[in-house]
Amino acid sequence: MAMNMENSSKDLVNEVDHVDMLDASFDAYEGVIINIKNDMDENVFTALLQTSISQWRQQGKKGVWLKLSLEHVNLVKPAVKEGFWYHHAEPTYAMLVYWIPETNHTLPPNASHRVGVASFVVNNNGEVLVVQEKSGAFKGTGVWKLPTGTVEEGEDISAAAIREVKEEAGIDTEFMEVLAFRQSHKSFFSKSDLMFVCMLKPTSLDIEKQDSEIEAAQWMPVEEYANQAFVKKHKSFDYIAKICIAKKDNKYVGFSPLLTTTASSAKKSYLYSNYQLEQ
Amino acid sequence: MAMNMENSSKDLVNEVDHVDMLDASFDAYEGVIINIKNDMDENVFTALLQTSISQWRQQGKKGVWLKLSLEHVNLVKPAVKEGFWYHHAEPTYAMLVYWIPETNHTLPPNASHRVGVASFVVNNNGEVLVVQEKSGAFKGTGVWKLPTGTVEEGEDISAAAIREVKEEAGIDTEFMEVLAFRQSHKSFFSKSDLMFVCMLKPTSLDIEKQDSEIEAAQWMPVEEYANQAFVKKHKSFDYIAKICIAKKDNKYVGFSPLLTTTASSAKKSYLYSNYQLEQ
Repeated sequence: MAMNMENSSKDLVNEVDHVDMLDASFDAYEGVIINIKNDMDENVFTALLQTSISQWRQQGKKGVWLKLSLEHVNLVKPAVKEGFWYHHAEPTYAMLVYWIPETNHTLPPNASHRVGVASFVVNNNGEVLVVQEKSGAFKGTGVWKLPTGTVEEGEDISAAAIREVKEEAGIDTEFMEVLAFRQSHKSFFSKSDLMFVCMLKPTSLDIEKQDSEIEAAQWMPVEEYANQAFVKKHKSFDYIAKICIAKKDNKYVGFSPLLTTTASSAKKSYLYSNYQLEQ
Repeated sequence: MAMNMENSSKDLVNEVDHVDMLDASFDAYEGVIINIKNDMDENVFTALLQTSISQWRQQGKKGVWLKLSLEHVNLVKPAVKEGFWYHHAEPTYAMLVYWIPETNHTLPPNASHRVGVASFVVNNNGEVLVVQEKSGAFKGTGVWKLPTGTVEEGEDISAAAIREVKEEAGIDTEFMEVLAFRQSHKSFFSKSDLMFVCMLKPTSLDIEKQDSEIEAAQWMPVEEYANQAFVKKHKSFDYIAKICIAKKDNKYVGFSPLLTTTASSAKKSYLYSNYQLEQ
């Protein structure tokens, strides 16, 4: 008898788990993270979602996160029909969210900025590494530019600057300083841009230009770079060129990176400043 | 007769436009931007999409952009079935993309960084404005923090610092400098964080704290802030506190903003550096 009772009680629990609720875990902010593992019929999903949200509401839960990979794209429409909206998306998935309470949501915002680097690589002869690009706004203009590129997700600014110089011109470098940075808006859809001007010291000098993106690459006296009509015409480029000349002449100090950890997670991070510990 | 011919020719054009192709415009990079205005049946959409892509392929087009608002969420699934994937998403829409050529795509990346500010507001008595937060990692710890917040999409770093100090403590300020910045990774899903430590000069001194987020706010001697066990324990906080003390004692120079325009668009932007024009 005892055995039978145990079994039937266990079955009941399994049945409740399986039929009525979506598989989910809770986070530290009264949030719910739905876990979609297998293909699911849209109507079954809608029924489970309604029951689950009702249950989570009773438990005082707030935000609900629903990550739908491209394989489960059939569930995007039923989720939106139940009141979900997009939080963000990456190539292989969309992250949808829902807010259970009657209050305004306090979910964290999506990433808002793209980050780029422009590299000032100056050799011992006072020459700067410059390139002409095969595509983009400067194509065919004859303008010599500092090598530029986009900081990838999870990549350090310093690492991105070193990588781009190597890719575009085949030059090995050591990262020195961030000389300046620029914030601009609506550069791409509604997103903003942060561009860091970095100074790097070359540890090799023989240029091997990348064929796909770069038309030409060379070492050029810093003053010649700064005197290009295009550079002088645009305040931002002109100012950056003046900073580069001051740096070449040892009359400028930018921000240097210091390896630290973030307090909340003990993950490695870099703090950029011009503070010297012996100060 | 002439009139009749004109009419039938016009009808034919209308019919071709209407039946066979999706409404779209072209961009400067051989890209196609699909324009979905009205509700559309999923099967009709799939047929139109297939015909359109076939046509665009013949025209040498490359990337195809498909912005689907929440109202047209029914088209996400058929688009993915045809080979589209997510580029990014915002609360009200998902942006899907497709690459027509056989080559690897060269579509621009999604935004990768969230941007935050921490504000060092110091008065003429050498006291810093500090707060205790009602939620988050520091809730109930008794730690006094610099006011912090997230830079909104399209918002200048300097404006965000001023706004957060006003919101959290009711203090009016003038933006002075970026003292330092920190880059950290995987703080939120796979996104990275950039946090700018800003120095601001108060133009009012009476604190009116925000009730919803802030437990307490006060002016505190900078050294007392720096000597908190929590601050001393974490290298990043400790270093930032040292920079704040140096700044208070006029022994540190950060980056100041200069209003410029970006070369490609003539849009306003700020360049932050410690370069002085009279240098």
